[in-house]
Amino acid sequence: MNAHSVSAPPSGAFEMRLTVLFQHCDPAGIVFFPRWFEMLNQVVEIWFAEGLDCPFRDLVGERGYGVPAIRTEGVYPSPGVLGETLVWRLWIAKLGGSSIGLRVEAEGEDGRLRVGFDHSLVFAAVGPPPKAMRIPDDLRARMAGFLAPTPEAEEGA
Amino acid sequence: MNAHSVSAPPSGAFEMRLTVLFQHCDPAGIVFFPRWFEMLNQVVEIWFAEGLDCPFRDLVGERGYGVPAIRTEGVYPSPGVLGETLVWRLWIAKLGGSSIGLRVEAEGEDGRLRVGFDHSLVFAAVGPPPKAMRIPDDLRARMAGFLAPTPEAEEGA
Amino acid sequence: MNAHSVSAPPSGAFEMRLTVLFQHCDPAGIVFFPRWFEMLNQVVEIWFAEGLDCPFRDLVGERGYGVPAIRTEGVYPSPGVLGETLVWRLWIAKLGGSSIGLRVEAEGEDGRLRVGFDHSLVFAAVGPPPKAMRIPDDLRARMAGFLAPTPEAEEGA
Amino acid sequence: MNAHSVSAPPSGAFEMRLTVLFQHCDPAGIVFFPRWFEMLNQVVEIWFAEGLDCPFRDLVGERGYGVPAIRTEGVYPSPGVLGETLVWRLWIAKLGGSSIGLRVEAEGEDGRLRVGFDHSLVFAAVGPPPKAMRIPDDLRARMAGFLAPTPEAEEGA
Repeated sequence: MNAHSVSAPPSGAFEMRLTVLFQHCDPAGIVFFPRWFEMLNQVVEIWFAEGLDCPFRDLVGERGYGVPAIRTEGVYPSPGVLGETLVWRLWIAKLGGSSIGLRVEAEGEDGRLRVGFDHSLVFAAVGPPPKAMRIPDDLRARMAGFLAPTPEAEEGA
Repeated sequence: MNAHSVSAPPSGAFEMRLTVLFQHCDPAGIVFFPRWFEMLNQVVEIWFAEGLDCPFRDLVGERGYGVPAIRTEGVYPSPGVLGETLVWRLWIAKLGGSSIGLRVEAEGEDGRLRVGFDHSLVFAAVGPPPKAMRIPDDLRARMAGFLAPTPEAEEGA
Repeated sequence: MNAHSVSAPPSGAFEMRLTVLFQHCDPAGIVFFPRWFEMLNQVVEIWFAEGLDCPFRDLVGERGYGVPAIRTEGVYPSPGVLGETLVWRLWIAKLGGSSIGLRVEAEGEDGRLRVGFDHSLVFAAVGPPPKAMRIPDDLRARMAGFLAPTPEAEEGA
Repeated sequence: MNAHSVSAPPSGAFEMRLTVLFQHCDPAGIVFFPRWFEMLNQVVEIWFAEGLDCPFRDLVGERGYGVPAIRTEGVYPSPGVLGETLVWRLWIAKLGGSSIGLRVEAEGEDGRLRVGFDHSLVFAAVGPPPKAMRIPDDLRARMAGFLAPTPEAEEGA
């Protein structure tokens, strides 16, 4: 994989569109890098709602879980431009017992990779302190549809 | 180095304090992870102004440079708490010809690592498109004071 | 008009939906009021793109205009809830020579007014310093479709 | 009072400094207006901590209060510039039984008013739903020091 190009996503990748808004852009007229992380969270949130059929409202409110981030790595090979509509793709690179490792990419209108993330979350009972919990079975079953078919993708931890 | 503990920073590390504000916190009452990246940018910005004596206003306005991020990796080993004052430390892990690799850490009031970043920037002439430029000599000279004394810290690229 | 209830919008009001995201919410679990202003700007931006057929990208990039805010008043009669989809309505309460006074409201899933704004913008040539300019004729013509039919709505200034 | 000039603040006004950061600025290179509201909240938060000796952490965590905003009006007579240090002043224009009406102003390095706010908060028991509560006596006593000496400033409601 070339970290600076758009990946060939697995067939089941979740796909959605987000437009670069004025509020995302900095004085250089391009996306301010912390806003990429806000957009990342938005994509994950919409994936929970639409891809896993479990909106954060239910996850947090009814089930009492949180999904705090534990590690995020982002590269920004090309600048995001005001007003362009990005195609975002999300898939599971690694599914553990209580954690998930997501790959999330945004492709610009010119076909180039704008941002690529490796983002790890953990399921936790709402604290304090938060306590790691097994991913609920119904969610795990639905997550399988977004799992990249690689040897390393499913493990015990 | 244990990625989940506060590092022994090099003697010349830049140090400052930032308090966790209401605007940084999420419905779980802890720092929302994209806000860590906003705080990272704030620390880098204050380091340029106070540590390098080159505020962004001058860097961008008078010199015509930008310093876009090219890669950021963050871990969040413990949750940031509303109202606590964090000690931030920044040093240069790798100084290239046009790029710098920063290590930035925030220590909580309990002495634990809240967030640790490896953050790479590149000096660029303001675009479009931006074009990588050699770090100006006066800034490079001042950066030397924040360089970690490791074999890998200074290289040609 | 009761400032704390949803208005009967004029027939031509621009209408769209925005969902309350995790990033909008504060430790009390409701929309943090500065995020309402971010959402306001997003609604105005989408209205320019879809309602006036003039995306900010064109307005700023090709035409050289900005539309800085000059005054904003907001009331928040009921708290915005994580995950709810708000119906936003925007119309022109006052159309001047170079300025527009917008009314923007968000209605919650329970039918109550979440936030109501009176928001004034001015057309300006990009500075510095910005200089007020007459609203371009093609935009003014399209704006007429969003004008509330009140005696005070169209004036000279 | 001229709404577009810096006011002569009452003698007891709370005063602090905040610098305009890169993260506050938009593609026009000036403060993006929703960021003014974030800064407003920051000033109010620091006033609670330093002026009233009651950090939000204690107010929310120990006392179980929130202080949701109920109305905010802002004017922006001159653009905020990257890197300038603003002098912020806050005082109480109206002190009610459970609500406070604040006047908050930011003065730029050129002495002009950047932003002026009339901002109303209400003391509430943490919900849902939030319930208006009388301002605690110790806080009310400390608030008196920040009250503008006008006939309208203290009332029953």
